[in-house]
Amino acid sequence: MTSVLDLAGIFVFATSGALQGVRKRLDVVGMAVLAFFTAVGGGVLRDLFIGIQPAAFRDVGYLLVPVAATAVVFFWHPQVARLMPAILVFDAAGLGLFCAVGTEKALLFGLSAPHAVLLGVCTAVGGGILRDLLSGETPALLYDRQLYAVPAMLGATLMAVLSRLGVYDFAATLAAALLAFTLRLLAMRYSWRAPLARGVTTPE
Amino acid sequence: MTSVLDLAGIFVFATSGALQGVRKRLDVVGMAVLAFFTAVGGGVLRDLFIGIQPAAFRDVGYLLVPVAATAVVFFWHPQVARLMPAILVFDAAGLGLFCAVGTEKALLFGLSAPHAVLLGVCTAVGGGILRDLLSGETPALLYDRQLYAVPAMLGATLMAVLSRLGVYDFAATLAAALLAFTLRLLAMRYSWRAPLARGVTTPE
Amino acid sequence: MTSVLDLAGIFVFATSGALQGVRKRLDVVGMAVLAFFTAVGGGVLRDLFIGIQPAAFRDVGYLLVPVAATAVVFFWHPQVARLMPAILVFDAAGLGLFCAVGTEKALLFGLSAPHAVLLGVCTAVGGGILRDLLSGETPALLYDRQLYAVPAMLGATLMAVLSRLGVYDFAATLAAALLAFTLRLLAMRYSWRAPLARGVTTPE
Repeated sequence: MTSVLDLAGIFVFATSGALQGVRKRLDVVGMAVLAFFTAVGGGVLRDLFIGIQPAAFRDVGYLLVPVAATAVVFFWHPQVARLMPAILVFDAAGLGLFCAVGTEKALLFGLSAPHAVLLGVCTAVGGGILRDLLSGETPALLYDRQLYAVPAMLGATLMAVLSRLGVYDFAATLAAALLAFTLRLLAMRYSWRAPLARGVTTPE
Repeated sequence: MTSVLDLAGIFVFATSGALQGVRKRLDVVGMAVLAFFTAVGGGVLRDLFIGIQPAAFRDVGYLLVPVAATAVVFFWHPQVARLMPAILVFDAAGLGLFCAVGTEKALLFGLSAPHAVLLGVCTAVGGGILRDLLSGETPALLYDRQLYAVPAMLGATLMAVLSRLGVYDFAATLAAALLAFTLRLLAMRYSWRAPLARGVTTPE
Repeated sequence: MTSVLDLAGIFVFATSGALQGVRKRLDVVGMAVLAFFTAVGGGVLRDLFIGIQPAAFRDVGYLLVPVAATAVVFFWHPQVARLMPAILVFDAAGLGLFCAVGTEKALLFGLSAPHAVLLGVCTAVGGGILRDLLSGETPALLYDRQLYAVPAMLGATLMAVLSRLGVYDFAATLAAALLAFTLRLLAMRYSWRAPLARGVTTPE
């Protein structure tokens, strides 16, 4: 069962994948491939690492939503690109939601709290990594310009802590998602960066 | 059980991987790695997404055929490269066969028709994507020059429709494979292309 | 259960991943991602191909060791880089250990000897391939400068042969690991290379 929120997150991530396809001047097939993997790639990796069949290959919603996002970008990409600032906010919302949901699912299947946090982050950022690999770029995540993985990690950690305290319900998911979402917005607003190793300077 | 046809498809795809290794001036180990992943990569991904152990790691044929293809290319690659037009025809045959067989297997394991079509396409094109990623190129599939994924998608769709109609046997596989094969040949002959998003022009 | 030797191998591989992160001027998050995938990537792929849940997502040691390696490289990378010749020896030790252990695990789960050898090699070299893909380089393994995969293949083959002969214990693992380790050191010392296809010359 995919909730409306989950599908909304998938739509936002799929849009970012399809837009990358337009930037790379791919045709509609390439756009759809990028949209699909950006949207569900993180969850697919999480499920493989948990050792279960990826949900994206059982639930038709995971398939139709990226197709719909591709169609929207195909016909109206100039308008969608103009909405980019709004999309970054939605992307932050997707990041928050996916890290919370991913952590919860990993805990549900009996993984340790540290592994659940790792898989929460994987759910949130894995799709973007696949998108970048497939379109021939070094994954943006690795540079973590303006903290991206770190907010997801802190949201996932909150989720794991709340679960340990017995708070397993919707409130926990919401709190974790909100934490990651807020930190991500603050990181973008104030250009927060993760530290480089001692003596290493930022590439130009 | 791998049929003779399946192994023939694997041989063709492995040859294309090994040739890419020669073009990239890789040594024999690199050639073998590319041959193996090009040939079985799509099926391995399909099986992981279905949630079963990849057949390529159970059946020794999947291992020996890429090794044989590597040996052939290692000693006779100028002759093999000269056969390239013929190889493109064989590749189209492999594409047709793999999309039909992949869809059938996904349906057999109870996936929905749209997912089965997706996995049929994945079987047909996944190996080529891995080959390109491993050898440091943007996946050719993403550009879909002269329709490659689309014929596979239509062949897979025919397979899924025939299965729904109760036609599960060899005739269905053959019809689906032939459809994809023919469409692919026509796409090469007439340079059919998938459309780009509105206002986007082909890269030079 | 992860043995001390296994964790030592993971530490060495994680160090090589974190150092690549420094070379690429990634921040600490990127370093940790590379450290983790370099160290456990080969084993994760092996387990997925065997069809079981990857051990790296069950055992907390697989998570903490890469984090520790990242911290060491983060603070002391000039000193670690100066140890590079020593690290290449440790890397060869990791290569030997991982190919032996990987082959053993695959045999234990009932895979055929050729597949077990393949998965032994995959365990030994898969992490390095992922490290290179994620950091935007063509996998060094594909070029196999100074034999890297071949020693692992021979070590894995010895392991498979000894297992067939009924020698399943620690001595077999040690012998296989030592063979791969020694061959790798000799390959570095005498610049052994795998052959290129007939008529192909080394790039530049």
